[in-house]
This record gives sequence, C-alpha cells and structure tokens, in this order.
Amino acid sequence: MSTGKIMLVGLGPGSVEHMSGRARAAIAEADTVIGYVTYIRLVADLVEGKEVVKKSMTEELDRAIEALDRAKQGKKVALISSGDAGVYGMAGPTFEVLFQAGWTPDSDIEVEIIPGASALNTCAALVGAPLTHDFCAISLSDLLTPWPVIARRLHAAAASDFVVALYNPKSGRRARQIVEAQRLFLAHRRPDTPVAIVKSAYRPKQRIEFTTLEKMAESEIGMLSTVLIGNSNTFVRNGLMVTPRGYANKYDVESGTTRDGEKAGRSLSTGLNGWLESLRESGESAEELARRYALPVDYITAALADDAVEDDATAEGETFA
Amino acid sequence: MSTGKIMLVGLGPGSVEHMSGRARAAIAEADTVIGYVTYIRLVADLVEGKEVVKKSMTEELDRAIEALDRAKQGKKVALISSGDAGVYGMAGPTFEVLFQAGWTPDSDIEVEIIPGASALNTCAALVGAPLTHDFCAISLSDLLTPWPVIARRLHAAAASDFVVALYNPKSGRRARQIVEAQRLFLAHRRPDTPVAIVKSAYRPKQRIEFTTLEKMAESEIGMLSTVLIGNSNTFVRNGLMVTPRGYANKYDVESGTTRDGEKAGRSLSTGLNGWLESLRESGESAEELARRYALPVDYITAALADDAVEDDATAEGETFA
Repeated sequence: MSTGKIMLVGLGPGSVEHMSGRARAAIAEADTVIGYVTYIRLVADLVEGKEVVKKSMTEELDRAIEALDRAKQGKKVALISSGDAGVYGMAGPTFEVLFQAGWTPDSDIEVEIIPGASALNTCAALVGAPLTHDFCAISLSDLLTPWPVIARRLHAAAASDFVVALYNPKSGRRARQIVEAQRLFLAHRRPDTPVAIVKSAYRPKQRIEFTTLEKMAESEIGMLSTVLIGNSNTFVRNGLMVTPRGYANKYDVESGTTRDGEKAGRSLSTGLNGWLESLRESGESAEELARRYALPVDYITAALADDAVEDDATAEGETFA
Repeated sequence: MSTGKIMLVGLGPGSVEHMSGRARAAIAEADTVIGYVTYIRLVADLVEGKEVVKKSMTEELDRAIEALDRAKQGKKVALISSGDAGVYGMAGPTFEVLFQAGWTPDSDIEVEIIPGASALNTCAALVGAPLTHDFCAISLSDLLTPWPVIARRLHAAAASDFVVALYNPKSGRRARQIVEAQRLFLAHRRPDTPVAIVKSAYRPKQRIEFTTLEKMAESEIGMLSTVLIGNSNTFVRNGLMVTPRGYANKYDVESGTTRDGEKAGRSLSTGLNGWLESLRESGESAEELARRYALPVDYITAALADDAVEDDATAEGETFA
C-alpha cells in the first residue's frame, strides 16, 4: 500500500496573497481537499480537478475521520482551516481521531501541519499594533468548555492586564457570553479601554469597528468576528490601536536618553533582580509585599529565599532594549 | 514629493516557503530593506540590488527612525520581523516613532502591516497541537517591563489553566526569569505538565525538546527559543504534544454519541445558561459560589442579578460542536 498523507493547512486570513507558499503547495499536492464550505470557497481556484469534501462548521471530527479514511487508501489529503490550523483549528481534533484509531507517527500515514497567520495576527495587522505586549486568546464558545473555566480565564486576563483576543465571541444562540466577558473586564479596566472588532479580515466583506470596553456589547458581533481588547496602556490615535512596548519605562521619549537608574540593553531597575533587591530592602513582611504587588505570598517568600545569583558576566542580544 | 511607504513585514518562521506571497511581494517592491541581521540573512535572495540596513537586536527605535527617514524621501521601505510584525515585533515601535514625528495616516507616507505566522504558531505546528485551547503569550524579558507585571501575568495564566508560550525566555544576562516562571507555574500545575522548547523553527538549526514543567529550567533555552507549557489537559503521545478541545465533555469518545444532558450544536449543560441555572438552584450564597468556582463574588452576584434571557430561537453555526 502506498503511503497516505494528511496535511493540516492554515490558510491565514483567507485572501490568496496572504497564504504561504507551503500552504498553496500542500493544496496543489493533495488528492482530496476537506474543509468548511466557506474555506473551500476561499481556495476555489486551487481545488479544481480534486475530490472536494465540504463539511459544516460542527463536523470537525467527521472531517478528521474522512481525512484518515482517504489517507488509509494512500491518498494525500489537505484538511484546511482558516487562520492557523493549530489555533482552535483542525490540528487538535485530527490528532484526537488519529490516536483513537491507533495511529502512530511511524505508521504508513504521514501528518504535516502547515502554520498560518491566525485571526489575532491578521486582525491586529488591520487595526494597528495592539499585540506589542503580552496577550491571550480566549474562545467564548461554551459548546465544549464549561462557562466557569472561560470566566476564570477572562477574569485572570483582565486582572493581570493582558491584551485579549476573543474568538467565537457571539453566535445566534450565544448572545450573552460577550456581555459576561465585558462585565468581568469592567471590574479591572477603564470603561474607555480601546476595543477593535474585526470581521472577515482580508476578505471581501471585511469590516473594522473601533469601540470601547463600555460599549462593545452594543456593536455588531458575529461568528466571523474577532474582538481585540487593549491593555491598560493601549491607545487609539489617528484611527490606529497601539499597545506600547514600554520604551517610556526606560527612555525619555523626547530626548531618547535613558532615564536615571536605567541602562540600555539591561533589565529595568524594576526588573527581576532590582525588584528582589527592593523587596529585601523594604523591611516589609512577605504578606505586606504580596498585597502590594498582587502576587501570592508563597511566591514572594520562595523568591526571596532563593539566593541564586544572577550571572551578569556574559553579554547577549535581547529582542527589546 | 512622491509618496513614501513603510511596509512592516512578518516573515513567518524564516524559511522562504512559509512566507506569504504578500510578504515576498512587499520585499520585492521595496527600495530599502531594514532589519535585524539574522532576518536579513533569511531573505538574502530577495534583497539583491536594494539598499539594505542591518541593525542589531537592541535598535528597534533606530530601525523605525531610519524607515521614516527613507519614506520621507519617497522611498518604499520594508521593515522586516521574523514571525508576525505585530507580536512583540516592529509594528508597535514603528507607530510610536511615527506618532512622535507627527505622522498621520492621511500624510504622504503610507503604512502597511503584512501579517505572518508568529513563533507560537510555527513552534506549535512542529510539536503537535498544543494551542487547541485558550492560550497566552508572555515575554520574560524585563528590559522594558517591570518584573511584578510579568510575574502577575505568569501567575494568572498558570492559575486559570491557559496554555502558555514564553517569548524571550532566557538570555546570557537573564537566566533566572525562567526559574521564577517555573516556580509560579508549579504552584498550580502538575510537575509532569508537558513542556516543549523549540529553537529556530523551520530554520537549519531547528531543535525541538520535550520536557516537563518540573525539569524545564534544566533544558537548553536561549533567545531563539520559544517555550510552550501545556494546560492541565495537555498530553504527549507518540512524541506529539496535544491539548484536547473538549469533545470528551460532550461526547462518549468510544461510541461518538452525546453524553446524557448534552446536545450537539448546543452549549454544554455547564455552559453559561446551564451554569447560571445551577447557581440559582444551589441555594448557596454568592460568597460560597465564588469560593467554589474561584470567581469574584461581585461577578457571581451581578450575573445572577441580570435576568437577561438568552435568545435560543435562532440557529447559527459554531466553530466547535
């Protein structure tokens, strides 16, 4: 029997020019292309002459089972997802089905995952630079995830000042989840926190709306929307949503010189070592410090007890100065 | 004066085949290509005959200033980043410099951001399907971010069971941050939680290591590594790291039938509406419920007080069943 292959292809946003060369080649190489109808339509020009299996949104496991079935016959199968195949995409369900069927990587069926820009990357590119600092992706769909799990993540992300991308924010049956998300965020973020809602990024029906945390639930949001919520430093200027990286923590923005006590290419004075030193010098109890910094008291105690000394002798580049 | 242009190009992982068509076209279209030396080397074949400005890691603002300078002369400039230009990339610093210089989108200088697959997408594609559920990206670099901010995010992500991608996990000068991250995670996750460390994804020196939360600090980690930490359900099987989407919450895995009380295409019985109903029926106080579900008491109170009724009448697709 010839060797079959399953290729999990991330299309990126859905316009042909934003697909990777490898994604196009994988579809070209395939005997069978399987995907949600909308995604098949996005690559219509590439699938001519191939077996095409169109599935509805809710048939992820079916898609994976069909892919395995074809691959067992020695076929090459492209399972296509918009965005990245790994981010809430087909890669997970496919491995679950493959493992269930006893598949191993050294079997006759090869599996390749072809990464793509996911919705958070492409939506961010259209609204400015909201993801310049730490961010989370949270799906508001409770079809497979209990709500308390989702709510805890929303609360944690809001409290610790992540930029957040909400996937599957709303559907015909799920209108209240976005309201609950807003409620959890408003407990920690200003009502005027910038929010961008991007629908069908880089596709003909693309729609971008800027709003605020306070008003976001009033906006038009659907299953093809991604909602980006800024952190406490995110701003909108000239129609662009930008999260600063933090240069102002180290440099005087006007003159470009480093602030007192800071050094280019070095950790901030409030970086790990400087911070630990300030804790030691404060004379405060671990409980007081934990309250002040909103960190677990056990963590403060353990970090202070650990006298591992930082090796400051070697020099190496750093992504951000 | 002719119109200048700044194109913020995300290269993806760095192999030519994983670049998007638009990223290649943008570099081809450019008069000047500016980037960190390593990234310039990745696209060496595309930059022949162009002005090339190589910068070191720590010169992001300089790169943006040089780009603006060229664009003012009517040049087209490609500012290249590996991964996605928006994720800890050049998009943020560039807008900061542009705004500082008084630039507006209707000025003579056009700005385009070209999204790419970021390190978390490409590293995930190489290790299996770790990002099938909610995830965070956290940079461990304290060069521009105070450590307590980073620590609070690590703690929050660990406590609320996100899959986490650590960017800039370690450098010659910063060896202890990864140990502190591990400490914060071990307070919430099992010591055997799967961890993957991916270096130079899709490049000649690619290196993948599977380890566990307990042992990750002993691994070889550097500035070109991304560290992926699984959530409480993530497993490694046959050398693949997979985070389940949650089908087992709804379906019997053997037979494929839905579990008692669950319906295909509908929210889980523990989804928002079912959960709220169970809270109302429990007869417990908001304080007891808050403790049980590890959610703020204010949230429990507000959600119960809100008698917005879910509209269950319309039907629409959902990404996950």
